[in-house]
Amino acid sequence: MTKSVKQTEKEFLYYVKKMSNFKEAHGLMAWDLRTGAPKKGASQRAEVIGTLSAQVFQMSVSDEMASFIDILSGTDEIDEVTRDSVAECKKAYNKQKNIPEKEFQEYVVLTSNAESIWPEAKEKADFDTFRPYLEKIVEFNRSYVEWVGYEGNKYNALLDDYEPGLTVETLDRVFGDLRDQLVPLVKAVTESSYQPETDFLFKHFPADRQEAFSKIILEQMNYDFEAGRLDTTVHPFAIGLNPNDVRVTTKYDEDDFRTAVFGTIHEGGHALYEQNISEKYIGTPLCSGTSMGIHESQSLFWENFVGRNRAFWEKNYVLLKEQSSGQFDNVDLDTFYKGINVAGPSLIRIEADEMTYALHIIVRYELEKALINGDLEVKDLPKAWNDKMEEYLGVRPSHDGEGVLQDVHWSGGAFGYFPSYALGYVYAAQLMNVLRKDMNEGFESLLRNGDLGPVKEWMTRHVHQYGKSKLPLEILKETTGEEINAQYLIDYLKSKYSDVYKLNIQQAK
Amino acid sequence: MTKSVKQTEKEFLYYVKKMSNFKEAHGLMAWDLRTGAPKKGASQRAEVIGTLSAQVFQMSVSDEMASFIDILSGTDEIDEVTRDSVAECKKAYNKQKNIPEKEFQEYVVLTSNAESIWPEAKEKADFDTFRPYLEKIVEFNRSYVEWVGYEGNKYNALLDDYEPGLTVETLDRVFGDLRDQLVPLVKAVTESSYQPETDFLFKHFPADRQEAFSKIILEQMNYDFEAGRLDTTVHPFAIGLNPNDVRVTTKYDEDDFRTAVFGTIHEGGHALYEQNISEKYIGTPLCSGTSMGIHESQSLFWENFVGRNRAFWEKNYVLLKEQSSGQFDNVDLDTFYKGINVAGPSLIRIEADEMTYALHIIVRYELEKALINGDLEVKDLPKAWNDKMEEYLGVRPSHDGEGVLQDVHWSGGAFGYFPSYALGYVYAAQLMNVLRKDMNEGFESLLRNGDLGPVKEWMTRHVHQYGKSKLPLEILKETTGEEINAQYLIDYLKSKYSDVYKLNIQQAK
Repeated sequence: MTKSVKQTEKEFLYYVKKMSNFKEAHGLMAWDLRTGAPKKGASQRAEVIGTLSAQVFQMSVSDEMASFIDILSGTDEIDEVTRDSVAECKKAYNKQKNIPEKEFQEYVVLTSNAESIWPEAKEKADFDTFRPYLEKIVEFNRSYVEWVGYEGNKYNALLDDYEPGLTVETLDRVFGDLRDQLVPLVKAVTESSYQPETDFLFKHFPADRQEAFSKIILEQMNYDFEAGRLDTTVHPFAIGLNPNDVRVTTKYDEDDFRTAVFGTIHEGGHALYEQNISEKYIGTPLCSGTSMGIHESQSLFWENFVGRNRAFWEKNYVLLKEQSSGQFDNVDLDTFYKGINVAGPSLIRIEADEMTYALHIIVRYELEKALINGDLEVKDLPKAWNDKMEEYLGVRPSHDGEGVLQDVHWSGGAFGYFPSYALGYVYAAQLMNVLRKDMNEGFESLLRNGDLGPVKEWMTRHVHQYGKSKLPLEILKETTGEEINAQYLIDYLKSKYSDVYKLNIQQAK
Repeated sequence: MTKSVKQTEKEFLYYVKKMSNFKEAHGLMAWDLRTGAPKKGASQRAEVIGTLSAQVFQMSVSDEMASFIDILSGTDEIDEVTRDSVAECKKAYNKQKNIPEKEFQEYVVLTSNAESIWPEAKEKADFDTFRPYLEKIVEFNRSYVEWVGYEGNKYNALLDDYEPGLTVETLDRVFGDLRDQLVPLVKAVTESSYQPETDFLFKHFPADRQEAFSKIILEQMNYDFEAGRLDTTVHPFAIGLNPNDVRVTTKYDEDDFRTAVFGTIHEGGHALYEQNISEKYIGTPLCSGTSMGIHESQSLFWENFVGRNRAFWEKNYVLLKEQSSGQFDNVDLDTFYKGINVAGPSLIRIEADEMTYALHIIVRYELEKALINGDLEVKDLPKAWNDKMEEYLGVRPSHDGEGVLQDVHWSGGAFGYFPSYALGYVYAAQLMNVLRKDMNEGFESLLRNGDLGPVKEWMTRHVHQYGKSKLPLEILKETTGEEINAQYLIDYLKSKYSDVYKLNIQQAK
């Protein structure tokens, strides 16, 4: 007797709910490992995480899943959430079933080993030790794109894992615009005779006072502490276990309060996204951010367009001073504002400012694309890296530890991920442009009053609530009426840095 | 082609490792829920915990498990750890496979509902609301003992779940001895003309200073903070995720430091057990304490025989004073010692002292045994409870909220669990007697110097290391040469309370 579609739908929803429960367990194990799990338990914990991952993976490629997809795809007898969930599962299933199991298992071991040798290779600036691992990782990714398939450029297959719907063709245009206009801006800022005062940034600010301020700001952002918590870690992150449990982490550098303040706002932006996904997606594969880029648009929007905005500090500089130990006593708001917006070329991505950040990403994007397409070999990578850094940022690493070895991503095989960071910034500027209009140019006045509720609500309405049920480019198009367009970000950066650095730059239109 | 035994052994060990990984995930989810998980995430979290439990349960009764048991039972080609693990899995399998699935599912729902209505019933002292749930729970347990089978008394089937090998026949003897000799002791203490001074106990002691002291004591106990951590919670517990990750929780009552100090030492005792199980059992079903009673012997040993020992405070009272805000300024060590050992009859088990605690347990044991054997019906339970409290402790509850409804255990169906609490205390006194001899009567001098390493090592050698590979009574017999014997505990309590209350009680031998 054939089961009814309705019965199958019920079973499918139960099945994906179980998957999402295993994912929540996985997420908590990872959170715990990074926030305070006992040191000696780490290796056993890694095995537990492995078991949970494997469980989710097996469920996503099982015969049962195949049967659900088969029965439920294309029928209109099912609920919309189910339909979109089935589509999401089908996409994952089709991708994963084409990857040969043996090669995949070997790759898991390979990247695990690469990740463990990477820190020392970086420390010792020793590319030769890392090179054979990276060669094999690139080789796997070259095969991977063939297994899963692509249209146009081979690199599209990797992009699709992090930014579904995005292509090299689009990225080349967007990143090309950014590169062409940011390179001269960076040059002008670097050569500016005026440089902001920054001494006051590096005075002692006790960690517990930074924590108090971080909480004030998260509350102001409408982060819901009853559905989250704030902890410390080495490499800050936010994690959504489900919309009712979304955790932020930060770290406190007592000699530079900016690490915690802007780090917390950034992760708080990610957290707002996850907290405000519609409840109807809980327990389905749609209950997460739609892409890395849209996620990053949220964190960067809050960090830069809100947190590094002069209006934001009109109220909050007073609150910051109250928590500090007097380091701002003779520093007026304008000096403070310019100080926190100091910018200039540097070698290390994670220390880069908002003006130069995208250029760091473009360097990686161009190299990844060349590697995957066979236009560059791993052995030639360090030189190519250094050349591009010099060309775009005007600085050249003196060794590979501050060059090609600086990021962990490639050791874990995360090719296709880097572009999200810069894309998110481009998206954020586009969203900002519309939001500003919708607020009738009252955006700064909301910031001035610490009244961030309407800003958060706007983002929830246009972005957060949909979870993964809309593609990144759908969200962008529906909200802004446009395709991806780097010009908003470029205009913003030119205008901001002309002000901060007292430059006279003609606004490109 | 038949698989070799060796190959099956390998697969079995991989299988139970996976089970133990799911259990670790389950444990962390529960720990998190009780130490700081966001409030709004609680109901979703309960579902995740349910998924993980179900996964472990299914794996323990699967056809695959049956096949492992079939092939590996009785062969001598396998390693000792495997052999004991198979035996443990077989025991669980045989028990669980006899429970009808439908009834079990209904029971899970029943106890879940009973647990949620219990707090309000207790609050309102409303037994009638709770009664129908309890009746069904008792009914299930009466069936349960028939399904899983028993020898002798029906209640033995339930005891076996928590204290394998223990029987009603033994418990009646042991608890009878305790009851007969403790009842007059409690009476003598209650009627004593001398009562210790206690005012100083209830002064303000800041939570952060209590935490600092708790950590000092845990360090002194040789609790390994690199394989654990200390957090706060409402109902303190310790949890072993694996021997390298064993967490202690406590709570700080700023008006009564004893809650945290003795609570932390108690949970620290549980934690030392879990931290010191031999590494060879990691990933097998043998990697936990052997029984609730032996576990409780560890916590009570540390809490009472160490933590409430006068010698322990010779050094630690000085350290406690350093953390306090002057509440002990005019309190000498003897006054302090007597104050922390104040004892007397009370209505609530979890607030009971070490002299009366066992009597609270005996009340519950006798009632449970009567319920399971059909000698008592739920409708008659409140009166039976009150009568026994009056008989053994000389106090009678004025309502069921401070009587039969006070504990959560029965709402969750945990029949057979309570005896462990008192048994653990009996075991602890027996172990203490041997330990004292092995230390050549130097036990107090170790305590005096805060040199608790040898004490912990003795417990590891005799108890901790074996995990679940030995039965409780094997551990007891091998360490003490005796069966269960309440006399050591009785002698200790008589001697101690004669001293604290300046009584002249003849030592029973």
